[in-house]
Amino acid sequence: MRDVAIIGVGVTKFGELWNKSFRAIGIEAGMKAMEDANLSGNEVDGIFVGNMSAGRFINQQHIDALIADYSGMATNHVPATRVEAGDASGGVAFRQAVMAVASGMNDVVLVGGAEKMTDLDDTSINAIMDSTADAEWEAGMGVTFAGLHAMIAQRMIHDGTATREEIASFAVNSHFHGALNPNAQFRKAITLDTVLRSGPVATPLGMFDCAPISDGAASVVLCPLEDAKKYTDSYVKVSAVAQASDTLSLSQREDITTYGATVAAAQRAYQQAGITAQDIQVAEVHDNYTVAGIMALQDLGFYKRGEAGKAVLEGRCQVGAGPVAVNTSGGLKARGHPIGATGVAQIVEIAEQLRGSADKRQVENAKYGLAQSSGGMGSAVTVSIMEAI
Amino acid sequence: MRDVAIIGVGVTKFGELWNKSFRAIGIEAGMKAMEDANLSGNEVDGIFVGNMSAGRFINQQHIDALIADYSGMATNHVPATRVEAGDASGGVAFRQAVMAVASGMNDVVLVGGAEKMTDLDDTSINAIMDSTADAEWEAGMGVTFAGLHAMIAQRMIHDGTATREEIASFAVNSHFHGALNPNAQFRKAITLDTVLRSGPVATPLGMFDCAPISDGAASVVLCPLEDAKKYTDSYVKVSAVAQASDTLSLSQREDITTYGATVAAAQRAYQQAGITAQDIQVAEVHDNYTVAGIMALQDLGFYKRGEAGKAVLEGRCQVGAGPVAVNTSGGLKARGHPIGATGVAQIVEIAEQLRGSADKRQVENAKYGLAQSSGGMGSAVTVSIMEAI
Repeated sequence: MRDVAIIGVGVTKFGELWNKSFRAIGIEAGMKAMEDANLSGNEVDGIFVGNMSAGRFINQQHIDALIADYSGMATNHVPATRVEAGDASGGVAFRQAVMAVASGMNDVVLVGGAEKMTDLDDTSINAIMDSTADAEWEAGMGVTFAGLHAMIAQRMIHDGTATREEIASFAVNSHFHGALNPNAQFRKAITLDTVLRSGPVATPLGMFDCAPISDGAASVVLCPLEDAKKYTDSYVKVSAVAQASDTLSLSQREDITTYGATVAAAQRAYQQAGITAQDIQVAEVHDNYTVAGIMALQDLGFYKRGEAGKAVLEGRCQVGAGPVAVNTSGGLKARGHPIGATGVAQIVEIAEQLRGSADKRQVENAKYGLAQSSGGMGSAVTVSIMEAI
Repeated sequence: MRDVAIIGVGVTKFGELWNKSFRAIGIEAGMKAMEDANLSGNEVDGIFVGNMSAGRFINQQHIDALIADYSGMATNHVPATRVEAGDASGGVAFRQAVMAVASGMNDVVLVGGAEKMTDLDDTSINAIMDSTADAEWEAGMGVTFAGLHAMIAQRMIHDGTATREEIASFAVNSHFHGALNPNAQFRKAITLDTVLRSGPVATPLGMFDCAPISDGAASVVLCPLEDAKKYTDSYVKVSAVAQASDTLSLSQREDITTYGATVAAAQRAYQQAGITAQDIQVAEVHDNYTVAGIMALQDLGFYKRGEAGKAVLEGRCQVGAGPVAVNTSGGLKARGHPIGATGVAQIVEIAEQLRGSADKRQVENAKYGLAQSSGGMGSAVTVSIMEAI
């Protein structure tokens, strides 16, 4: 297995992009990543695409062929593969791409993630998102993702492992960083009071506990670490890509305040990279709901159970304020959450941080960065670790 | 890269399985494959699933987690990955799984393909299938898959590279074999006259030129070749897995009577395996329409352009009758075409042939077998080659 490097990154602005088509944003992100890597395009011999549900959002399946075609790579018959794992689609696409380069099957791989969600009405969008939960035993019974996350929050509050204020503070942290990211959907810092007083969605969660519906795309280019210098001086090493599954339905878990798949994927990733959680200085975690962000910080080993909420509330997850800066991109809550793009956008942010191009949200002297992407109710989780060169 | 073996295969009956759920058939095929490989299940450290559109057919995304969960493997947090490439979803899942074992990332991998299509009405089913064509430039204009294949057939007849009778005869060949396969959807041999007189779908193609709508699942288990004997004496070697892309839209091709992606994938596969088309004794090709089967035989190098139709019409693709037996399973036309399952079911058939367990449809002394899976209008194609041990 060869070491792998990220040699280019690209991301579109996230938001309600009504004037751009799915294929337009997908190609925009890919072209930015290839330009960033100083590629003409002919070097690329493999494509992996993360997308959750273009088949339902825009009535277009077969996104692999679409991207190969519109990037001009169908001319060379470059193999393109779409993967889906709910919200973790982008994370899984990245892992498959790393595997393709590590194994020697491919030499230069383009990874893309994209989703166009805002062209439908809210009811349709929610129905599509709920189809990543268990259709027979959860979504089919009427429970929504917000409802499932609310149950987790209720349980944490009941157990005394987080307060309502601590949970809500995760959104404050995300918006603090989103204000510093020119590509974020929401670029406005908010106060705890804004979160606590926002319209109720599923008690105790309110509107500001939930990530928005978004359009957007993100892309990275990979090659063997030993070849990276041929293309660019600005690259980072991929130290680990791990993945784990869990039951589709939350109702089948013994403990709903931890995601076993995050714990398992993190253990595997730390082992692959030969480090521990304490070696990480910057992390992107899957805060589709505030409470999921709090859980992630504990499941990844950054904080013990019951202590992540306190750290976030006290501002210790902001750039420069604690041992690990969390969601410096703005996270899903403020950067936006175009589902298939999210996992790849996390990798983009970590790569930017480790190569020192994160501008106003730069974490000083970061050596290791981590990205955690979660599908459904933590039913598929990827944990990737990158390292500065 | 390690050599890879197929150590177990499993397939459900294909057809209108109204009394079984998606998860039931998926697990049935997987359990059969694991029993066939003498596994308890704890040995499996990776799962890959091919599925085209459960999100639309049964309102369930996140099939990766579903399969991990219902196979009992979520307990060990086994990573599960769903891939989609239209009709080629199963073929691409197989390729990703082979890569996972070859690279050393996984040691024992379960590959599944499944689709549950018949629970919807015909209009809905066709709309879903058409979403693997180009939604903006083809499907959105009203052209169907049958219409696109009819254009190819018209062009071949116009060019003099196939007659209507030759094209139609592909269905006769598929049904001849389907009658010998206990798991086939249609187990009745038909005559050329039946195909020619069947109700018109898109001129010149009639109902018997088109593969049916089906439910079904298929599964194979992979491990490193050097470990195969630990599990079973009945295994085959995977000699090549290649993949290629082409434009999403047929309208962008210079020549619509050949699939460039099949040609490219075949060339890559023969090179990987160190053989030529003439070394293959048994092949499963993607006959979603009769005309696609004829094209495949030419694009794979079994016959020169203009000669495949003659060979099929003369019965030379039947078991024991020519250099290469084609679609001994019954193919998509007679075995059935549950989209995500199809590419994996092809691998099952080739493995059965090469290990000598294909019963009444057994090809004698087959050394090499090939499977070709095509998504959309040949927009994503996989070609896999297996070898008897």
